Formats: sequence, structure tokens, C-alpha cells
Amino acid sequence: MNHLIIINARILTPLGTSAIQGKAMGTLFEIPNGTIEVTDGIITYVGENRSSLPEGYSVFDAEGRVVLPGFIDSHTHLVFGGYRPEEFIWRMKGDSYMSIMERGGGIINTVRATRETSLDDLKAKAEWYIDVMSRMGITTVEGKSGYGLDKETELKQLEVMKAINEDPNRKVDISTTFLGAHAVPTEYKGREDAYIDFLIDEMLPLVKEKGLAEHCDIFCEKGVFTVEQSRRLLQAAKERGFGVKIHADEIVSFGGAELAGELQALSADHLLHASDTGIQAMAENHVVATLLPLTAFTLREPYARGREMIDRGCAVALATDLNPGSCCSGSIPLTFALACIYMNLSVEEAITAMTLNGAAAIGRADRIGSIEVGKQGDLVVLDADTPAILPYYTGMNAVRNTIKRGKIIY
Amino acid sequence: MNHLIIINARILTPLGTSAIQGKAMGTLFEIPNGTIEVTDGIITYVGENRSSLPEGYSVFDAEGRVVLPGFIDSHTHLVFGGYRPEEFIWRMKGDSYMSIMERGGGIINTVRATRETSLDDLKAKAEWYIDVMSRMGITTVEGKSGYGLDKETELKQLEVMKAINEDPNRKVDISTTFLGAHAVPTEYKGREDAYIDFLIDEMLPLVKEKGLAEHCDIFCEKGVFTVEQSRRLLQAAKERGFGVKIHADEIVSFGGAELAGELQALSADHLLHASDTGIQAMAENHVVATLLPLTAFTLREPYARGREMIDRGCAVALATDLNPGSCCSGSIPLTFALACIYMNLSVEEAITAMTLNGAAAIGRADRIGSIEVGKQGDLVVLDADTPAILPYYTGMNAVRNTIKRGKIIY
Repeated sequence: MNHLIIINARILTPLGTSAIQGKAMGTLFEIPNGTIEVTDGIITYVGENRSSLPEGYSVFDAEGRVVLPGFIDSHTHLVFGGYRPEEFIWRMKGDSYMSIMERGGGIINTVRATRETSLDDLKAKAEWYIDVMSRMGITTVEGKSGYGLDKETELKQLEVMKAINEDPNRKVDISTTFLGAHAVPTEYKGREDAYIDFLIDEMLPLVKEKGLAEHCDIFCEKGVFTVEQSRRLLQAAKERGFGVKIHADEIVSFGGAELAGELQALSADHLLHASDTGIQAMAENHVVATLLPLTAFTLREPYARGREMIDRGCAVALATDLNPGSCCSGSIPLTFALACIYMNLSVEEAITAMTLNGAAAIGRADRIGSIEVGKQGDLVVLDADTPAILPYYTGMNAVRNTIKRGKIIY
Repeated sequence: MNHLIIINARILTPLGTSAIQGKAMGTLFEIPNGTIEVTDGIITYVGENRSSLPEGYSVFDAEGRVVLPGFIDSHTHLVFGGYRPEEFIWRMKGDSYMSIMERGGGIINTVRATRETSLDDLKAKAEWYIDVMSRMGITTVEGKSGYGLDKETELKQLEVMKAINEDPNRKVDISTTFLGAHAVPTEYKGREDAYIDFLIDEMLPLVKEKGLAEHCDIFCEKGVFTVEQSRRLLQAAKERGFGVKIHADEIVSFGGAELAGELQALSADHLLHASDTGIQAMAENHVVATLLPLTAFTLREPYARGREMIDRGCAVALATDLNPGSCCSGSIPLTFALACIYMNLSVEEAITAMTLNGAAAIGRADRIGSIEVGKQGDLVVLDADTPAILPYYTGMNAVRNTIKRGKIIY
């Protein structure tokens, strides 16, 4: 049983069971010298230090260090075959995406490798990343399919995540997303609507029946799937009880954020080119605006307008976008640095974005994302008495301990 | 005894005993499937795999992974008291350096803390950073004084580094630099020339006599020390047998790179605003242009013109600038990412910059910086068969093993 008491902690946390919008993101609840009690993996006390401790608990003395909710990475593609470093080099030399595609590069490269890789090998690779990210404070991660683009491989990717989630000693929980509409598979080139039909008629029922995914996502972008195709898929997914998410407005302003508002999606993600109307639609409809600054950094793209989105009332989340193409990085420290230094989020806003708002983006704000009685005992201990260390210790891991359901992982 | 044989390595290394200039930085010597033999800490064989292995050696099978020379961080301030995260937050909010100074911030804040911290505490803190950096492949680091600005504390900082260097189990070697001219101490405000006199007349002889520093450095910048003051100090240092280095042209174009050329300094460092004349002077006089992109990243400054410097024939080195003010980061992965993605260095150029050219910047290219018979067995094993992983795995540690004098540290 995971019975743990943390004493002498500088507790900092957002509060509640839904995403925090706008400038309220910048206010964290604080207990300067507090105690957190975790019983059977669930938080049973948060408050001032007490004069005596109950029996049967491990005691962890935080010695004044900051304790935060476990970090939640609400957008990753962590199950994939192969790697694409050579494309990275071509891109740095200025080669266009089209010329890289012509050499067999791009997402289709990873699709081929993922189709060829066994479930066990995919699982081992995903667990390697999970281990690395757990050291950086991640306690829950979202994972997408989308490198199969056929029935068998899409299911295989989701089964990898299911297998990891069934391990009682797992270091993170995975929130699963079906992203069959990540790209148009070669077999369906020019027949995008037929592929959407296939996803709606065959895949969604199958994925639901097998209980393999909580959410459905689509890459709504010029040259990939249109707004109308995205609406059709996501509406069908909603009707079947999936949470819906959208890769929106990454490359051009395309109406993805607006669609997310219309559908009251859990999140719209990327948003480098979200329009003012799209930002308003997200704010009004409580769509979490999920920003992925590592990808913008790696691609030398401008960052999403995170500061403005917060100022206009959006709930912003931060995530890594870990994937083998545009962003082979799960660096939580660099995500904090980019958010605070380059997107002008305050440290408190960045913390809310990486905890409670990340939880909301995967529909789990009732269970994780804050340090409150009844939530999971997923916690991070920083190696400092101030949260400012997160951007200050630039690109370096400021996490001293990661605690999952009351168990000290690192 | 550290007798080690690495087999099945993809060996990649620059070659030689002096810095590599210009576009030649981009060519590494390669053995696709090779062996490195280290005897008593010194490399005794580099070549093809052999049919039999000598006795008495540990054998490390690299299984096709890339093996590089150990990384050399040729510019850090790793011995310091206190931290300054709150200033970081003020700066992010747009506060000026002057207003931060008025609140007791800036370098004087660290000077106060360093004066108050014991040698043992400073040593423990420096060793903590060394441990972190060793995991990222650093086998030699330069360290500067400059947070004392008085006799006692400057010596204390240098003695910390000496004590670490005397530990036979140290994870890195420290190359020591006297930077008494890091700032004008409060006691000498308005009497900068008198402070330079004190450094020349009292400190240099004392540091030399005690064998506490190999190099002498100065912060040559508008509002700190003039070119004339810098020339005077560094000439005196050269005469006493110190290698000389210059913090040059960081904030404005100030003639620092030109002075480095004139004095044939080991290195000129920062160089964000180095003039064309300065770049030419460095190239002609074999001054290593040491670039510190982490600091530019953290301060939201433009990066130094690394690509242009290489194209004009400079020998470029990359270093972290680890310090508690402008750049509390020793992230080697982020340094590689910034160099390749934002400064347009090729991966091979960045490797040369972080190995042989770093060695030359601290006067040690005869002993370290490449994988050649007679050099130290300081090596890095990447977690991939391609060096492209260094920027591709953006901001994440791509180093699987760090080897110091033939001993596997990680």
C-alpha cells in the first residue's frame, strides 16, 4: 500500500476539477510549510504540518522544498517505430518538406517503421521515454495512435498503451487517443472522404468496443484534412462517447480553433496560427488551448500567442508533442523555459498549464492536476524552495523527486 | 589502473593538437566500426577492430554506437555562492538591469554570497554541477573566479577548483581561470585603474606563486573595464605566463575581439556584437571564438554570428557560461540544439566546437579534444549510431556513457 506523508513542504497548486481560464491561471494556492498525506495512492490530507503523524505511513521530509502536482504532458506521440534524424539534418540545411517527402521522409517514413515494429518493441521504446520523462516530473502522459493509418497498426499502437497501463508498477498513466486521422495513408490518396468514412464506420466502433482509446483526434490542416472532414469525424466520435481533440492551425490559419469551439472539444493543439476568432471560440467554449513550444523551437517557427490567449480568457495547457519527426523531445525543462522566457507566461501560469489544465485537456481534472483531498497522490518535489527554478535552471531538470500515487519513483 | 578497450564503435573525431579553423571544422575523421584502447588513462590504439584483444583490459562493446571525444566546456563560472532566481523573474517581467541592481541584484549579489560561503560549501555545490554535467558528456570544464573581487575570496574560489582537481576520483578536470576583473568591486567604484593596478601588482603574482590559475580573463565591456584597462591587465598576465581570455563584445561592439587578436589570446568569449574587423582579427591570430548560446537564449539576445565566423576562418568553440545570473544552465544538449538549429552550425562543426576547439580555448589541445594515440582517454558514447541525435533529440541528453581517463563514469 502506498501510504506516504510529506512534511515541511512548500505546497503550491492550482485548485479545482476543471481547467483554469485566463489570468486566474497565475494564482496558485500556497501552504508555506505544509503536509500532504497520501493513503492508498489518494490524497487524504493537505494542510499545515500537524503535531503528530499517523502510523503506517512512510515519511518524506521536503525540508522546505516546493511540492507541486505531478506534471501532465497532454500531447505526445510516444508510440512509434524508427527515428528520423537524417530528415532533421536535411531540414536544418533548408530542404523543403516536399523534397524530404520525395526522399521517403515525413510521417510516412514513421508509418512504415511502426507497421514493421512488433508490439513488444514498440512497448519497450515507449517505456524508455516514459522513464526519461518520469525523471522530469511527468506522472500522466497522453499518447496518440496515428502512425499506423491501417486497422492493424492503429490497434497495435493503442494496445501498447493499454499494456503499459495494465502494469501495476507503471511510472505514469497514459491517457489514450485515437489519431487514425493523422495523415492520409498512401492507399487513400485523393480519397480522403473515403478514409474518413472508414474511420467512422469501422475504426471508431472497433476502438470503442475494445476500450482502447478515450479520445479521438484529427490533423485538421491545409493539405491534410479539411474543417468539414474534421467536423464529420469528431462529431461521430462525440456521439460514440469519445472526448475530442484537434491538431489545429499549426501551419496556417485554417479554422481549427473555431471548430474546436463549435464542438466544445477538450482541447485544440498547436495553434501557432490560431485567429482572434478562434481564440475567442476556445475561451467561450472552455476548450483547452494546448501549446507545444518545443515543436515551434525545433522547427524555428514563431511561438503560439500564449500570453494573448491567457489574457483573452483561454485555459492554456503546455505539452511536449514528443514525436520522431518535428520534435523528438520530451523535455519538460525546456518547455518551461520556452513558455516563461519566450511566450511570456508567468511561472505560476506555466505550472497551471502543466498540471490542472493538462489534466483538463485529457478529461481527468476530476482526478489529477492539483494537490487536493480525493485526487491521486501524483506529486513533484523541486530541488529548490522557489518555483522560479523551473525557468531559471534553464533547460536543466529541476525535479528532485517524482511521486506516483504516493510511491516515490525518483 | 584504467585499462579499457572499446570495440564496435562508430568513432568520430576531429584530429590534431590545435584548434580547427573555418570550414575544416565540419570534417570529422571516421572509423565506422573501430576499437579504442586506453592504457593507464591514455589512448594507446585507435583503429579498426582487431582479431584478438590484449589481456588485462575491461572490454566495452559500443554495439555500433557513436563514440566522440569527451565534451569540453571551456567557459563556466561554476564556483559561486547563492542563487538569483528572483532576478530572473524580474528580468522576464521586463525590469531593467539597472533597476535590478538597485534592489541589490546583479553580480554584486553573488559576490556577497560567495564571500559568505565556506570553501567546503562552495566545493560541494560545484561538485553537484560537475556531476550533472558529467552525465551530459563533459570530461573537462573551465572554471573562473570572479565572484570574490577581493583577495581572500578570489583565492577561495580558485582553491575550491584546486581541491577538486586533487581528487583522484574526480569526474572532470577543471581548467582554472583568474577573473578578478569580472566587475568593479564596490570598494573601487570610480577607481577602476587602481583596481587593475591591484590585480596586476598583488593578485597576479600571488595566484601564480600559489599555482592557482592557468589563465587570466577580464570582462571588457562598456561600463565595466575599457579596452585599455583590459590590454594592461592581460599583457601583464601574459608576461607572467598566464594564458589570456577575454569576455568580449557581449553587450555592445566594443573592440574586445580586436584586442583578443592583438594579444593572440587563447579565446574571446560571448561575441554577440563582435565587429567584422574583430572576426578577422580572431581568425588571423588563431584566437578561439567561444560562443555561449545558452546565455543569449536565456536573455532573449540575438545569437553570435557563429556561421559567419566559421565561414570567415575562425575557430569556434561552444561553451555553457554556467553562472547564477545570466545563465543558470549547464545544458550541453541545449547548447548543441541552439548551435545547430539557431546558429546554423552543422553537427560536425558543433562537435569540433565542443571538443578540440574547446580544448584549444583552454590551452589543452595537446592532451584532450580528440581521439588519438597519446591523448587522454576521455570519451563520450552516444545513445545512437548517428551524431545527428545531438540536435535531433532536442534538449534531451543523448549521451549514454561518459568515460574519463578510461574509467566509465556513467
